[in-house]
Parts: sequence; C-alpha cells; structure tokens
Amino acid sequence: MNKINVKKKQILQSKGSLHSKAYIVESGLLRSYTIDENGKEHIFMFGPEDWIVTDYAAPDEPCDLYIDALEDSVVIQIEKNTELEIDHKKIIKRIRVLQKRIIMLMSASAIDRYEHFISTYPTIAQRVPQYMIASYLGITPEALSAAKSQHLKYLK
Amino acid sequence: MNKINVKKKQILQSKGSLHSKAYIVESGLLRSYTIDENGKEHIFMFGPEDWIVTDYAAPDEPCDLYIDALEDSVVIQIEKNTELEIDHKKIIKRIRVLQKRIIMLMSASAIDRYEHFISTYPTIAQRVPQYMIASYLGITPEALSAAKSQHLKYLK
Repeated sequence: MNKINVKKKQILQSKGSLHSKAYIVESGLLRSYTIDENGKEHIFMFGPEDWIVTDYAAPDEPCDLYIDALEDSVVIQIEKNTELEIDHKKIIKRIRVLQKRIIMLMSASAIDRYEHFISTYPTIAQRVPQYMIASYLGITPEALSAAKSQHLKYLK
Repeated sequence: MNKINVKKKQILQSKGSLHSKAYIVESGLLRSYTIDENGKEHIFMFGPEDWIVTDYAAPDEPCDLYIDALEDSVVIQIEKNTELEIDHKKIIKRIRVLQKRIIMLMSASAIDRYEHFISTYPTIAQRVPQYMIASYLGITPEALSAAKSQHLKYLK
C-alpha cells in the first residue's frame, strides 16, 4: 500500500502500460478515459472519494485506459491482484455499474443518461466541466444542455 | 443446480424480474438484451457454449435485461449468489469483457468493433442474423456490411 499525492492534470496511467495499478481515491477526483483514432477523449469513469479507479486488463497485458487527476488528489495505489481482487462484494458491485453503463450507452435517451449520472455521481456535476459530463454520457454538449433543462422542468 | 432444455425463442428472463438466475450454457446459444423506449432491441451479450449469461442486478432488485434462446439450448440454471459468485476468476474476466465493451461502444470505429466481435465470439457470426450482430455492435446493418467488406479486404 502506497499513499500518493497527485496534482490536478497529473497522469497516473497511460494506455498501453503493463502492470497497471488500482487507485483508491482518498480525496479529490480521478477519471479514466480512452482516446479514439480522431484524438477525441471518451470518459470511462469518474472516481470521487472512496471509489476505486483501475483498468481491468490482465496485469501482463497492456491496459486500455488513461487515468489522470481532475483535482489535486490523495490516492492509495495498490496492486490489482492482491487487495483489490479479494474484496469480492466491491467487484460484484462494479459489474453492476458496468452493466448499467453499457445499457445506458446502447439504449437510453439523453435525459435518462443524465438522470442516471446524477444519481450515480451526486457530487460530480458541480466539479467537472460540462464537456466532460457529455463525454462520459456519450452525447453532445448540446444534447446534455437539453437534457438538463428537461430534468429541471420535471423537478418543478 | 438445475439442468433445463430451452427451445429457440423461449424467454428465460424478462426485464423487471426479481430473484433472476444465472445460466451456464451447455449447448446452444442464448442472448441477453434490452429494449429501448422506441421498442428497439439492443443486444447486451451473446452466450454460446460455456458462457454464463446473467443480469448482475442485485437479487432483490428488478433486473434490466431480457434473456432468450437463439437456438435450442441446454442450460444449467444456478442461483446468482451461490456458485456464480464463488468463481472469482470468471468474474474478473467478465469485468474485463465489460470494460472492453464500453470502450468499444464509446470510441471504436465500426471495423474495430467488428474485428473485436469476431475475436470474442469466433463461432457466432455464422449462427445469428446480421441485424443482431449490428445490434450488439451498436451500429447500423449498413455500417456492419461496410465493416465486413473492409475486413475481408485486409485479409487478402
């Protein structure tokens, strides 16, 4: 176990690294993301306090995700094959999150994606720029803006 | 453990069921899928021989996926919380598959999605109609057809 201070914008992991680690976020905010062939970023996951951010590639295979810090953060770096994989309940929960994310990406409307996002990450909407939320949701910033207005209308 | 024979088109699980099970495919082919608000199907996963098909919703929560048989199949029905969750290595592998799938849905070109599909499911392309492969990949049948031609060109 290895506690590290990470500055905003610092990159913890690049795509293609071997023996990538897992990061438990003690404070601050990480994200994992991929970059497509046109150079566009797609956010895979946000990691606020108490979340674990990692790439599930096998330890001897190159990983697929970049991980960086969106805020100054304190994280605990662990080996993927030890502590992380022992915590079975957390892993099952993670599978649930991933399944939901795939369903959302395939089939949900912008408003449903947005509402699922704010229930999953209640504190993130205020902490990251709008274009990153759109990237996570797989929609355009314009569609996000429309979904937010629609959501506010429902609340009234 | 409970071995059951399933007819082609038979539905094993509907969205919204509680206490949904996991299905180990002994022979045949299952799929899991979701239906969006316009009635369009989106295939979450194919389950050929030896795959486990399930919905990772918690047992006391309504599940999100439908599961049916694309061929006459023999499957072993198990409780999600017992045998399945004990097989830790399989679960970690499943997380890897889900991560890859999200990355593909967010950011990969049609040709990359297609090539990843045939490496993940080498026997499925001949067993299901093309529109189902397009549904799984999140692309139109026309984009699938173009990707297949491009793939064949590379092989020459």
